Amino acid sequence: MKKIFGCVLFASSLFLFPIKTHAIGKLQQDLPYAVSEQTQICILCHRNVTPGIVEDWKTSRHSKVTPEIALKKPLLERRVSSETIPEDIGSVVVGCYECHSQNSSLHKDNFEHFGFHINVVVSPNDCKTCHAKEAAQFSGSKKAYALDNLRENQIYSQFVDAVPSIKEVRDSTIHYSNASEKSKLETCYACHGAEITVDGMRKIKTNFGNIEVPNLKNWPNQGVGRINPDGSRGACTSCHPRHSFSIEIARKPYTCSQCHLEQDIPAYEVYNESKHGNIFLSKQDTWNWNNVPWRVGMDFQAPTCATCHNSLLVNPEGKEIVSRTHDFGSRLWVRIFGLIYSHPQPKSGKTYEIKNKDGLPLPATYMNEVAAEYLIDEEEQLVRKNEMKKVCNSCHNNDWVSGHFEKFDSTLSETDTMVLNATTLMKNMWDKGFADASNPFDELIEMLWVKQWFIYANSIRFASAMIGPDRATFKNGWWQLTENFHKIHEFAKKCEYEH
Amino acid sequence: MKKIFGCVLFASSLFLFPIKTHAIGKLQQDLPYAVSEQTQICILCHRNVTPGIVEDWKTSRHSKVTPEIALKKPLLERRVSSETIPEDIGSVVVGCYECHSQNSSLHKDNFEHFGFHINVVVSPNDCKTCHAKEAAQFSGSKKAYALDNLRENQIYSQFVDAVPSIKEVRDSTIHYSNASEKSKLETCYACHGAEITVDGMRKIKTNFGNIEVPNLKNWPNQGVGRINPDGSRGACTSCHPRHSFSIEIARKPYTCSQCHLEQDIPAYEVYNESKHGNIFLSKQDTWNWNNVPWRVGMDFQAPTCATCHNSLLVNPEGKEIVSRTHDFGSRLWVRIFGLIYSHPQPKSGKTYEIKNKDGLPLPATYMNEVAAEYLIDEEEQLVRKNEMKKVCNSCHNNDWVSGHFEKFDSTLSETDTMVLNATTLMKNMWDKGFADASNPFDELIEMLWVKQWFIYANSIRFASAMIGPDRATFKNGWWQLTENFHKIHEFAKKCEYEH
Amino acid sequence: MKKIFGCVLFASSLFLFPIKTHAIGKLQQDLPYAVSEQTQICILCHRNVTPGIVEDWKTSRHSKVTPEIALKKPLLERRVSSETIPEDIGSVVVGCYECHSQNSSLHKDNFEHFGFHINVVVSPNDCKTCHAKEAAQFSGSKKAYALDNLRENQIYSQFVDAVPSIKEVRDSTIHYSNASEKSKLETCYACHGAEITVDGMRKIKTNFGNIEVPNLKNWPNQGVGRINPDGSRGACTSCHPRHSFSIEIARKPYTCSQCHLEQDIPAYEVYNESKHGNIFLSKQDTWNWNNVPWRVGMDFQAPTCATCHNSLLVNPEGKEIVSRTHDFGSRLWVRIFGLIYSHPQPKSGKTYEIKNKDGLPLPATYMNEVAAEYLIDEEEQLVRKNEMKKVCNSCHNNDWVSGHFEKFDSTLSETDTMVLNATTLMKNMWDKGFADASNPFDELIEMLWVKQWFIYANSIRFASAMIGPDRATFKNGWWQLTENFHKIHEFAKKCEYEH
Repeated sequence: MKKIFGCVLFASSLFLFPIKTHAIGKLQQDLPYAVSEQTQICILCHRNVTPGIVEDWKTSRHSKVTPEIALKKPLLERRVSSETIPEDIGSVVVGCYECHSQNSSLHKDNFEHFGFHINVVVSPNDCKTCHAKEAAQFSGSKKAYALDNLRENQIYSQFVDAVPSIKEVRDSTIHYSNASEKSKLETCYACHGAEITVDGMRKIKTNFGNIEVPNLKNWPNQGVGRINPDGSRGACTSCHPRHSFSIEIARKPYTCSQCHLEQDIPAYEVYNESKHGNIFLSKQDTWNWNNVPWRVGMDFQAPTCATCHNSLLVNPEGKEIVSRTHDFGSRLWVRIFGLIYSHPQPKSGKTYEIKNKDGLPLPATYMNEVAAEYLIDEEEQLVRKNEMKKVCNSCHNNDWVSGHFEKFDSTLSETDTMVLNATTLMKNMWDKGFADASNPFDELIEMLWVKQWFIYANSIRFASAMIGPDRATFKNGWWQLTENFHKIHEFAKKCEYEH
Repeated sequence: MKKIFGCVLFASSLFLFPIKTHAIGKLQQDLPYAVSEQTQICILCHRNVTPGIVEDWKTSRHSKVTPEIALKKPLLERRVSSETIPEDIGSVVVGCYECHSQNSSLHKDNFEHFGFHINVVVSPNDCKTCHAKEAAQFSGSKKAYALDNLRENQIYSQFVDAVPSIKEVRDSTIHYSNASEKSKLETCYACHGAEITVDGMRKIKTNFGNIEVPNLKNWPNQGVGRINPDGSRGACTSCHPRHSFSIEIARKPYTCSQCHLEQDIPAYEVYNESKHGNIFLSKQDTWNWNNVPWRVGMDFQAPTCATCHNSLLVNPEGKEIVSRTHDFGSRLWVRIFGLIYSHPQPKSGKTYEIKNKDGLPLPATYMNEVAAEYLIDEEEQLVRKNEMKKVCNSCHNNDWVSGHFEKFDSTLSETDTMVLNATTLMKNMWDKGFADASNPFDELIEMLWVKQWFIYANSIRFASAMIGPDRATFKNGWWQLTENFHKIHEFAKKCEYEH
Repeated sequence: MKKIFGCVLFASSLFLFPIKTHAIGKLQQDLPYAVSEQTQICILCHRNVTPGIVEDWKTSRHSKVTPEIALKKPLLERRVSSETIPEDIGSVVVGCYECHSQNSSLHKDNFEHFGFHINVVVSPNDCKTCHAKEAAQFSGSKKAYALDNLRENQIYSQFVDAVPSIKEVRDSTIHYSNASEKSKLETCYACHGAEITVDGMRKIKTNFGNIEVPNLKNWPNQGVGRINPDGSRGACTSCHPRHSFSIEIARKPYTCSQCHLEQDIPAYEVYNESKHGNIFLSKQDTWNWNNVPWRVGMDFQAPTCATCHNSLLVNPEGKEIVSRTHDFGSRLWVRIFGLIYSHPQPKSGKTYEIKNKDGLPLPATYMNEVAAEYLIDEEEQLVRKNEMKKVCNSCHNNDWVSGHFEKFDSTLSETDTMVLNATTLMKNMWDKGFADASNPFDELIEMLWVKQWFIYANSIRFASAMIGPDRATFKNGWWQLTENFHKIHEFAKKCEYEH
């Protein structure tokens, strides 16, 4: 009760007192299990300060079940993966305080807030308390290193800097400034994540008077490879947004689409244009989005992104088809976007550690010599392909599936050849000094070359993988790949002619 | 009854009579309050002639409540804003005749139709009978002057004419014809509105024989700045479409998206790609779309366009957060699209009245000298920004919100610089006679320059305002802004070289 | 029972037996009418092998009604159109065996499968057993000949080959290889259909051991003009996907959108951006998607693709407005996409039979001289236009509709003029030898010309037909048509200058 009075005294309002009692009583009455005293006090103020997230939380499973109860579910139905959960939080529902107070000694963003020690940012290391397996799977994945894989890679850090920088003509030449941190936050780092640091405290004005809060740099940011003030990597809220932490939202393609969309990663668009997307868009309202485990054919009749890439699936009798994973590459054998050529998945999530024959942190040289020692071998590729095939086979027979993947393999090979043919022209221009290879992203001809692999070849591969033929053809597909190849060739001929 | 007989006699059908009695009886039986005799007669024929809109109306609130009843609601729940409503229409539900007979003396499109005097077009001035505040707010807004702001502005009228005109090569030069009225109706004026005039009467064939109706010019048109045959401006049906007049439809982003979409105004696309859009798309079916007032967190858990820009919002206890507005710029302090540079909102909806230092009706000169006297001052900007922040603060704390707007301010400044750098190249070409400034929209190099501000800078600003990072980066964002800048520079260099 | 034992014996599993009995019992218990013995056995294994499609089928009407019962419905409510249905399948629900065993003697893909003779591919000729009228309407349509209309047309077969072929620079010239069959399958043939042939048998591994299945070439493919192993044309599953055969899915625009989407056929995008799309997207969840006949205004309040182009519609009293058709061009008088100019619909679905004045299989010459004898005459155009107007008139009065179509006619004429002006430039380059007309798809300048008609003029026409003004203006509309015309002109001037 001391803390409750602390809060009440701070607010200096006798008037608040009866509201509070009523409010807490009403909150508890709505919910089946106990809400901690601390969380009740959080809500006491935040129902006025940020009512939207309080109500959002009330729609969540977190508000309606305690970890203790959650642990008693049969294994396949369980949504918590930690084998044990600390007693002090096990017996209350998962509220504000339960999440925003975890591991406070690690949190540089921890601060005193109306008598409590609160972390501003909740990190995967905090979620790990109940969701240990998911945190572990994620922690080694490419997603966890999404920021490092840009800024620790000298090629990609040039890319990040070139795109959103101010360009200006001086002396008949275009000069690139360095991109501002704010522009990087609104472009590459919005999806890849930023490093959130704490630079002292700052005063802010609230309805309850001035208060002091940690002065966070690079905030707000919910990128998937965010480096948090506790040193951990990731932002679970990227896919389980805000305070509902909804499995439904994570299972719908609208979530993945925030980052995996055209121009460079048209996964969402291809899905929408596929038969899977057609059925999803037409019938989604009749499906069971919250069931765990997720029953093929009964809970849904066509897959979403999550179905194929990470969900635990069972057949109608409840037998497991594939297990849940939060390493989103673990059912993938080949990487089809973001790099010059398609190539086997990297062994480690830290792709900036790769070094190819030319000494560059890329999985293949510009002329497509593969850095095989950093990539999974054929055996592992087959293991993963077979894992994915289990999902396909839920609805398609073997014949269908193998026919599909034969086309996909052919497309990877053909798009790689097309990119190699363009890169041969580009390399020739670099070699002859018609362009400057020291930064491969800052000249017009280089931008044409980048589009060839970063946009057009990618699109065709996604269209092949998920059957969205329009995108393979006329929408950033073969048509654009061809037209752009002509333009690169025209440019190259002009350079030869003029020099 | 005389009128009923009029109708029946006209139809010259004894057979119709028993159907009619039954039909009117059945209609009234479906509806809780009285339907006027006139509306019953409208429906008697139109249930056969245009059954879709009769059924649509039956789904509406208009068909289920009388203005008298509506006026008795508590203030915040009230959907009618007029303080008094004429007695003759107050006691019946709002049917065909109630709307299509208002202010008939003002309506040049009024005509005798089976014994009644009917306006073809229902205008904001008619809706004003019950919705006085909304009509008043709208009437001074940029939306109300959307048509005038094109055709009364000598720069933008050139734009409207250049785009959909026939182009032809004669003597090695491209010649532009004047755009046809029909093409303007299908392009700019479809959103901005057209002027509907009446040119006598014309005969049309119907199931009930030939009838005479007003011969409307520029019809059909539902543009938001339509000039109606009663002289009023606007078309409420732009956002409250057809005969359901649904608040649900107006609150959903699909409505705004008809005009506010890429290439030039990618508000809808950015929203869809944002976390707000992600949550909306995933959870919309569980939200309460019809509640008035709209309760943050309870009725919905993420905002739509309407939430931030015009809805009346209350917190879960029913306390007002922001009031309803139908001046859609009234929570906006800066204008980020449609013009060369971002700039403070104009004071008046009649933007064609602006005159900048160069004498042009633009809020800034080509070199970004602002016409400050026509734009809101810093104090008013702050008032509006704070109004918007109240919406943000419903779910985000102050820290989050201020961090977000700091990025936005930086982006406005950076995109304006990028546009200025391109305009400097363009102006140099105009000054040197490499291009002809008398019409800035009709040469290839000018089209590149227009894309720089009209498409690419806009996209980055919208992406910043509503957090859709892909569009800031690769989809009409920094990438295209940069590539296009290179192209403008190449063109400029070629001009210098050749002359 | 012999066959059941056959299956059980093959599976060599005593354990399977009790499961089977239970499984069949349970299946029958879920369903109102008898399931054939054969289908029960199919399901016995396939509920484990491909559970998704078994569950999908259980959601279908096929699983819940027998043809006998279906035939007893009043005519307008009937979903089967054959007047009689063979007795042996009339009394059981339409299960696996009922469809996959039809007309087996015609099926080159028929094979022995656990004691049954099964067709892999179910064709329109099989569906015809119950849906005779739909199969007949479809069989003469352009859709049925979608594959032939590409590969039997020497112009379009060049197009199909040029787009997805590997390009390479040799001796300073771009060389085109022939496109691989797999690439054609992933591009043009994915929508247009492929010819499925059978090349002997092949062994595949299953959970029940190795089995032999027909070795299908060009499989999987669900293109609408597929040539099936029984010689018939079409794939009903293009629009009635997988095993739910849902009328709901076919009525939603997500289905049509798989093929009718930008860049070349932006029907879906224009619809989404139209007022019809706005209402559909906002209110679809409240509509009745399964009612037959479909009641205007009651079952839905805005049309989808199916509403205007093929559904049987009735007014609220049940009176027919338009009849059902599976010849999707039968309410269309003009063709607005895919060819150089808009033109009256062809008389026959076999458009490759057309021969214009220049001897080419195109409905007009490059200079727009129409091959009138192959196209419907004015009288037939009027018949079809009036059919479409009946749909429009359900919600819009005559005045509105005629105003709309006047704009459309104007737009067809204007876009054709714009294309002619570009083609005049192109033809001049061909005539002067600046480009090589023998393949009009493989040079950069030709690609610009193709975009003029194949993408930009099309988009404006769709935007006009369905009122999506943004697309008429800035998104592959007049803006791009104009910018691209400038580029073609620049190219032409450069050729003149250099030669």
